[in-house]
Amino acid sequence: MFTDALRRDAARIGEHLEDVLKTNPDLPVIEGMRYAVAGGKRLRGFLVMEGARLHDVPEAQAIWPAAAIEAIHAYSLVHDDLPCMDDDDLRRGLPTVHRKWDDGTAVLVGDALQTLGFEMVLDPACHPMAEVRADLALSLGRASGRAGMVLGQALDIAAETADAPLTLEQITELQAGKTGALIVWSAEAGARLAQADLQPLTDYATALGLAFQIADDILDVEGDEATVGKAVGKDADRGKATFVSLLGLDGARRRAAELVEAACDALSPYGDRAQTLNDAAQFVISRDT
Amino acid sequence: MFTDALRRDAARIGEHLEDVLKTNPDLPVIEGMRYAVAGGKRLRGFLVMEGARLHDVPEAQAIWPAAAIEAIHAYSLVHDDLPCMDDDDLRRGLPTVHRKWDDGTAVLVGDALQTLGFEMVLDPACHPMAEVRADLALSLGRASGRAGMVLGQALDIAAETADAPLTLEQITELQAGKTGALIVWSAEAGARLAQADLQPLTDYATALGLAFQIADDILDVEGDEATVGKAVGKDADRGKATFVSLLGLDGARRRAAELVEAACDALSPYGDRAQTLNDAAQFVISRDT
Repeated sequence: MFTDALRRDAARIGEHLEDVLKTNPDLPVIEGMRYAVAGGKRLRGFLVMEGARLHDVPEAQAIWPAAAIEAIHAYSLVHDDLPCMDDDDLRRGLPTVHRKWDDGTAVLVGDALQTLGFEMVLDPACHPMAEVRADLALSLGRASGRAGMVLGQALDIAAETADAPLTLEQITELQAGKTGALIVWSAEAGARLAQADLQPLTDYATALGLAFQIADDILDVEGDEATVGKAVGKDADRGKATFVSLLGLDGARRRAAELVEAACDALSPYGDRAQTLNDAAQFVISRDT
Repeated sequence: MFTDALRRDAARIGEHLEDVLKTNPDLPVIEGMRYAVAGGKRLRGFLVMEGARLHDVPEAQAIWPAAAIEAIHAYSLVHDDLPCMDDDDLRRGLPTVHRKWDDGTAVLVGDALQTLGFEMVLDPACHPMAEVRADLALSLGRASGRAGMVLGQALDIAAETADAPLTLEQITELQAGKTGALIVWSAEAGARLAQADLQPLTDYATALGLAFQIADDILDVEGDEATVGKAVGKDADRGKATFVSLLGLDGARRRAAELVEAACDALSPYGDRAQTLNDAAQFVISRDT
């Protein structure tokens, strides 16, 4: 079952992150790191674990990129939540790092989590071949930096002061960077560990990532703050273009469903073995959190 | 001549960083990245280039870790200068990134510069062997993250609210993380590229890094803001323990001179070839900026 697999992988990833961080002294920055990686669905880490299973990669290897992508994702959330960025007080139903500690600590926590992400894929325990570790780390850099996630964030900020709302094409490009790139990296990681063809998982995750963002935009309109665990309705309040504002609620739902179908089609070379990943694609558009 | 070598290497590193960043679109985040890596002495990058020359490593390889460490150093400065950290308006005599743009842009600029640092040492052009690239990247993570630079910054923040000023031992530990770890990594990088023994350069840079920090503390007391290019006298104003407050001005100068001697001794296996690095050690305690 998908939800069981998600829960089991999330717990395993959480244990690994605790293990890695337990050798550090009890300073606010380290406590903030532990706090920031605790909880959450850990969907990105789950994609790593499942992509690795498809290629018979041992879990003891897959856990490293799975934990790494959760550290990178957590770093981006901690910095995004800062008052000078999205200014959010709540994340996963709990105070954000800068609310629980302070802004300076949150900056350092995010910085150290990014570094930790790279350290984990480069750990010799991640894979015996340095070539594979270097490939994971370089692709992680491309997915998260100025050509990936940060580019998407920069486009997002630029859009706020632009004269006209974004077009569907522009918002799709923005999303491909801001949330898509890490999702694609997550799904590909198992194939990278196995030195296998990345294409089916790339295509799967590209469609999945877009569906995920459309679902997020729908949740921002329809979701309940207590369930979602963070502020909702912010995009509409700001008059920001979203997939919902551009396609309408029904159109957005339809587009998300088409993308999930495309995602599942991409995995046809794997046959029945891809069932959990197919279920995951259904999940991202039906979740309420 | 040392100053010629420093100037030549700094220019070469600057060109490389411009080359790497010129493919990116003209968004404030990218402009901020270019701005943040422009100028400065580039002492860390110079240590990489000279350490590589000692081992006959081609400049076309050494330029990657040299530019990488400057990107990592620049990221730490951009984040350190934020209002929620040290709150500095001036860096290298120019407005800091958050003053020229805004705090959110400065957070993203720092984030993207950190990622860029990892990408550059992992670039296949850096070294033909993935093992060497992975080693450079993992050691860079350890030097800059929760076991290195960020740990030092966290200890520094903790010291501000501590009941008693730091002891000499504590301040030395703090410095070893905050500024020492990147300096050690820089000096070692050439030996890593050559897969040579790191020890002489480790010992050199450990002494050099401490001397560098002592010189910084002396500059903070004696320096002129216009020449130093950033605010001075801040530590004393805050009643913060520094090497000068603990050793006195003369004691601090004496200790720095002893460390420079130890640094030069460590390079004796390289004989005359280490002359430029020996001159560099002299420079760090006699600089006025």
